[in-house]
Amino acid sequence: MVSITSPSATGGTGASELFQLLRDGEPRTRAELAHATGLARSTIAARVDELMRMGLIAPLAESTSTGGRPPSRFALKPSARIVLAADIGASHATVAVADLAGTILAEHTEPVAVTLGPEHVLTWMLDTAAMLLEQTQRDRRELVAIGIGVPGPVEHSTGQPVNPPIMPGWDRFDVPGWVRQHLEVPVLVDNDVNIMALGERATAWPTTEDLVFVKVATGIGAGVISGGMLLRGAQGVAGDIGHVQIARGAGVPCHCGNTGCLEALASGPAIARALRAQGVEAENGDDVVALVKRGSVEAVQAVRQAGRDIGEVLTACVSLLNPSVIALGGSMARVGEHLIAGVREVVYTRSMPLATGHLAIVQSAAAGRAGVIGASMLALDHALSPGAFHSLAGR
Amino acid sequence: MVSITSPSATGGTGASELFQLLRDGEPRTRAELAHATGLARSTIAARVDELMRMGLIAPLAESTSTGGRPPSRFALKPSARIVLAADIGASHATVAVADLAGTILAEHTEPVAVTLGPEHVLTWMLDTAAMLLEQTQRDRRELVAIGIGVPGPVEHSTGQPVNPPIMPGWDRFDVPGWVRQHLEVPVLVDNDVNIMALGERATAWPTTEDLVFVKVATGIGAGVISGGMLLRGAQGVAGDIGHVQIARGAGVPCHCGNTGCLEALASGPAIARALRAQGVEAENGDDVVALVKRGSVEAVQAVRQAGRDIGEVLTACVSLLNPSVIALGGSMARVGEHLIAGVREVVYTRSMPLATGHLAIVQSAAAGRAGVIGASMLALDHALSPGAFHSLAGR
Repeated sequence: MVSITSPSATGGTGASELFQLLRDGEPRTRAELAHATGLARSTIAARVDELMRMGLIAPLAESTSTGGRPPSRFALKPSARIVLAADIGASHATVAVADLAGTILAEHTEPVAVTLGPEHVLTWMLDTAAMLLEQTQRDRRELVAIGIGVPGPVEHSTGQPVNPPIMPGWDRFDVPGWVRQHLEVPVLVDNDVNIMALGERATAWPTTEDLVFVKVATGIGAGVISGGMLLRGAQGVAGDIGHVQIARGAGVPCHCGNTGCLEALASGPAIARALRAQGVEAENGDDVVALVKRGSVEAVQAVRQAGRDIGEVLTACVSLLNPSVIALGGSMARVGEHLIAGVREVVYTRSMPLATGHLAIVQSAAAGRAGVIGASMLALDHALSPGAFHSLAGR
Repeated sequence: MVSITSPSATGGTGASELFQLLRDGEPRTRAELAHATGLARSTIAARVDELMRMGLIAPLAESTSTGGRPPSRFALKPSARIVLAADIGASHATVAVADLAGTILAEHTEPVAVTLGPEHVLTWMLDTAAMLLEQTQRDRRELVAIGIGVPGPVEHSTGQPVNPPIMPGWDRFDVPGWVRQHLEVPVLVDNDVNIMALGERATAWPTTEDLVFVKVATGIGAGVISGGMLLRGAQGVAGDIGHVQIARGAGVPCHCGNTGCLEALASGPAIARALRAQGVEAENGDDVVALVKRGSVEAVQAVRQAGRDIGEVLTACVSLLNPSVIALGGSMARVGEHLIAGVREVVYTRSMPLATGHLAIVQSAAAGRAGVIGASMLALDHALSPGAFHSLAGR
């Protein structure tokens, strides 16, 4: 039996299917593609041609020669399209252009206060993007998606910030809708710590399915990848561990209105406050980092205790999520091993052996670039997904 | 352009695609199916016929008549195939036969000690299944998958229990391999509390994507659904919250070797122990439940305090996962509102408003049947997935 179908029904879908196989960047022969998909060799040949015509894949120059004609191998062509990534922090923002492999082609960071409001910040983002496109000599028509991280909770389905405490003017602002008035591509918005988790995984743990990224800075928050998927929660506030109560916290007031929160004892400002109470001069987290680098015993002890406090909350995370990696980032992670030593001390003492037997607790490898790399991953995951193939192909 | 493809490449896949749409049980017309898939009307007609020939879908009798020929609607035929579900507990086990809608057609529970080892328990399971098949007059060839819950950690990829503390002889036992020697269908194995979360969702919260099921019995554990997906963790021990340290626990020894664990203070045996220390006669959790039902003030107070302890750990869960439902089950949940009142008291006091604004903390609706319903869901999710369509169709 031979069935006759229109190209809209199978041609496009078929190319997308093949592209899903090739999007990992691994080169494959036509025979390997036929084996993996179960499609006929003739169908594979037609679809490989289609993807090449779109410029999405390219044949590889073969190095080995066994006498006969070497089998041609095909792989994703990273330069075929580009994505835009923006990491918007409380006081600074970064914009970057990345290729389909997630390689950052150009980036720019400058002080931008998120409190200036969405229109100001997003206009700056678009201007910076235009500059970067010119710098990399890429055209905006090559753009297939934009990923944006913001320092607050985001409703996943709409990309709107929801009740973000440090982002006045952004509550329920339609970020994707506003950006799409200027650049007509899919716009993905997520919490900054969530995208840092994506960036950390892409940088150092590409095969890990269960990773927790903890940002320790002015605030404390976590981005959680479990079973390979970023967790957002019902209101987009999953990972908001800064206000979990800790044992040592009894009576210590927190800006949230409660007492004893992790953030009230282990954030940069909290550590600085504890040091001032001991007569050590420290205005903020940066001062604490500088003191530790200069070898101040009081600062080292205070940072280690903050690590233990964070470890207390992470023990519950380990029991609940059974991650294989916990990576510590954010400005306070620059103090180095002292913070992590405190975390490890508590987590390894307090957790069940089965959950910690293969658990790595490490400093972020992506460090300050976790956010912008993660924002490009957010854009790429969407742009390369089966549902977005049509827009990828149509450019 | 018209492309010619073999039926193995598109025929099977196409029917599977259509089936994925219809597996939710909602009836749809051919026009609705064409609209949803983008396939040509003629292709839809052929594939609907194919699925009807397989017996997987059926046309619905139409009730409305608008004068013209009413459009025929098609829906999943729940009776087309069956799955087997087994909920193996520490001391009791339940086996059930369910249809493709997850409706339990027959079930049987009896005392079976998990300590008798895998071959004994699984042989009992197969004998019971044979009895239930006879009782429901269904043939084993109609069986498309088996879901099994066991009281210990399970490696998700292999279905093997790993270091299960209360299951001697089961460590690394190849449950799917053993069962498949007798019944050649896919065998899915998971932790009992994980499947209870699936069962609770199916019973009372079918549209909820973020649900935590907490089992409070001899031990305390959680099953976590986040973003619609069951979390397993790197070693399959996600949700193992019984050994998180709580504030009130300082110095209280736990059977795990640590001190101050939630399970050492808030489990059935722990509450009974606390009551005995007050001179109240209580051997175990069942006695505590009976005392509460008889109105013992000491028992009510002890249960409420256990609720607060559980709430302390759940506060961290709420911050980390931002669920929309926490359901309490297990034998101790039979005490009713007293336990939940303690949980609510702490969680609503201690969590950030954004995370609790839409959070329901409730008693399990599935109760004692959460496990067996969840095991059938585990089997159905697999049997009705695109990858399993071939085996579903081939029967």
